[in-house]
Amino acid sequence: MLQRPEHQVAGHEAGSGTLGPLIDGSGHFFKPLNPSDERGAHELAFYTSFFSDPRVPHSIRSSFFPSFGGTRVLPIPDAPDLLLPHLVLENLLHGYSNPCVMDVKIGARTWYPSASEKYYAKCLKKDRDSTSALLGFRISGLQVHHESGRWKPHRDKVRKYTVTDVRQSLRQFISKNPDETPPDCALASSVYGGSNGILAQLLELKSWFEDQTLFHFYSASLLIAYDKGGKAPRLKLIDFAHVMEGEGIIDHNFLGGLCSLIKCVSEILADAETAAGPTDPQVLETAADLEAAAGPAEPKVVVGPTENGIH
Amino acid sequence: MLQRPEHQVAGHEAGSGTLGPLIDGSGHFFKPLNPSDERGAHELAFYTSFFSDPRVPHSIRSSFFPSFGGTRVLPIPDAPDLLLPHLVLENLLHGYSNPCVMDVKIGARTWYPSASEKYYAKCLKKDRDSTSALLGFRISGLQVHHESGRWKPHRDKVRKYTVTDVRQSLRQFISKNPDETPPDCALASSVYGGSNGILAQLLELKSWFEDQTLFHFYSASLLIAYDKGGKAPRLKLIDFAHVMEGEGIIDHNFLGGLCSLIKCVSEILADAETAAGPTDPQVLETAADLEAAAGPAEPKVVVGPTENGIH
Repeated sequence: MLQRPEHQVAGHEAGSGTLGPLIDGSGHFFKPLNPSDERGAHELAFYTSFFSDPRVPHSIRSSFFPSFGGTRVLPIPDAPDLLLPHLVLENLLHGYSNPCVMDVKIGARTWYPSASEKYYAKCLKKDRDSTSALLGFRISGLQVHHESGRWKPHRDKVRKYTVTDVRQSLRQFISKNPDETPPDCALASSVYGGSNGILAQLLELKSWFEDQTLFHFYSASLLIAYDKGGKAPRLKLIDFAHVMEGEGIIDHNFLGGLCSLIKCVSEILADAETAAGPTDPQVLETAADLEAAAGPAEPKVVVGPTENGIH
Repeated sequence: MLQRPEHQVAGHEAGSGTLGPLIDGSGHFFKPLNPSDERGAHELAFYTSFFSDPRVPHSIRSSFFPSFGGTRVLPIPDAPDLLLPHLVLENLLHGYSNPCVMDVKIGARTWYPSASEKYYAKCLKKDRDSTSALLGFRISGLQVHHESGRWKPHRDKVRKYTVTDVRQSLRQFISKNPDETPPDCALASSVYGGSNGILAQLLELKSWFEDQTLFHFYSASLLIAYDKGGKAPRLKLIDFAHVMEGEGIIDHNFLGGLCSLIKCVSEILADAETAAGPTDPQVLETAADLEAAAGPAEPKVVVGPTENGIH
């Protein structure tokens, strides 16, 4: 039973003449490989390379990437006579009844050094018109399930988000009543905080990006998802149509954006902790707490005496 | 006794109709404030703000920035009748007899969101033509003193450096014979390594950049300097004519470039350690060693079980 994913918050949607992803009932996510578009072939090449590269730690692959099961030829919903190969991926929202989902495109720039002038100009304009250049990331879409239904800002609205809107959305995303002003941030502790939370996962991903020089993830997104079922929130990298070989250089563009997102999430956690107060049983864990528990983040070194004699 | 700095490796040089910095015999570095160029006023505003902002930790200010002593009106070398105000800064090479110096401009992009279209286009071209966009930093100049004299590649040559050239220069910089192929990297341990070395200082600076949202250091450089005198090598931020207010956002552009430089320096140290062998008394400290000694860099967290059922 193939169907269109109900909880897609960004990207192409299947139907009405457009190719889009499909899901089945057993946890698969099928992404069409459009033969007239090299991006599909590029993404397939990435998955093939990434899942066979022994230099990628197993924990990184299994924690932060969708599982990959090769390709499968499937009929297109609106043109069932037409068959097309699809990437066979993991449906990252499988098992969630009412998922809260956010798609965050990481990196201040989405163009890569070898891009055509046309693509480069298009990306550069989007990066400057969105929050990417300023903040190092932009939100591509989100939805929040709350008691009285689903809150999902329109795509055109999300596209115009300012830095203030992005900060607000990161708070609404973990609020029981996202429409409230200010958002209540009632789920900050259980979604962003804790040793299995989003912040801890972001910090683990950051460690890998400080070291890995295999791939540069231009235009890739982080999918952040949780539901009320009490499972650990998920953080996964998606959309690899513009991944380039790292050629021995770290992905400083992705890493910088990731650090900016980490800072924003840390601030929300710190604010929620202050609001909860020291005697509140809901003890939150901030980045500082997590790092303190694990020892200093960086060696504290004495850098030698400094000349201050010029005053 | 004012004179032109002998060991300047980048930036404007004083004389022949051009304004440039001057030094005296007691550790001052005077940078002219050209009244027809707003950059001087901008840099003065930065120093004034930075040195009076209580949110900047004292250790960061004293370890990684030149001391600042206000302004002083001085005559111009080629036109002694002309008086001009100068920034009074610390001569970072004071006390070094034969300094080895490198100027590294940090950040994949040197333009800032509010830049004029003209300045933006100029910066963007330089970033793409140099290693900045690709590597997250570029070398603006360097000199190495060795037994038989001074090695200082010409400015036009440095401007054309490829990624390979940059990596090579980072090795030549800590070699006794920089012209040798491959460079000997004999000083890797004493300059880049150790608890007072450049890598340890870079990591300390990185910690601050992961947190600080006060300033964005567009087009700023790291000055790396050492001499044979046995003092701790110096790492200082310089050139603040394009520093912008951070407005609550981390400087992901600078941070990304800094992490890329850290990775390059770590690799040189690791290679030198391998070359030295395990029984060599010259024990090197790599980033991994330094971080291991201080505890894990990031909390190691369990991210929860991963579905792998789609294979």
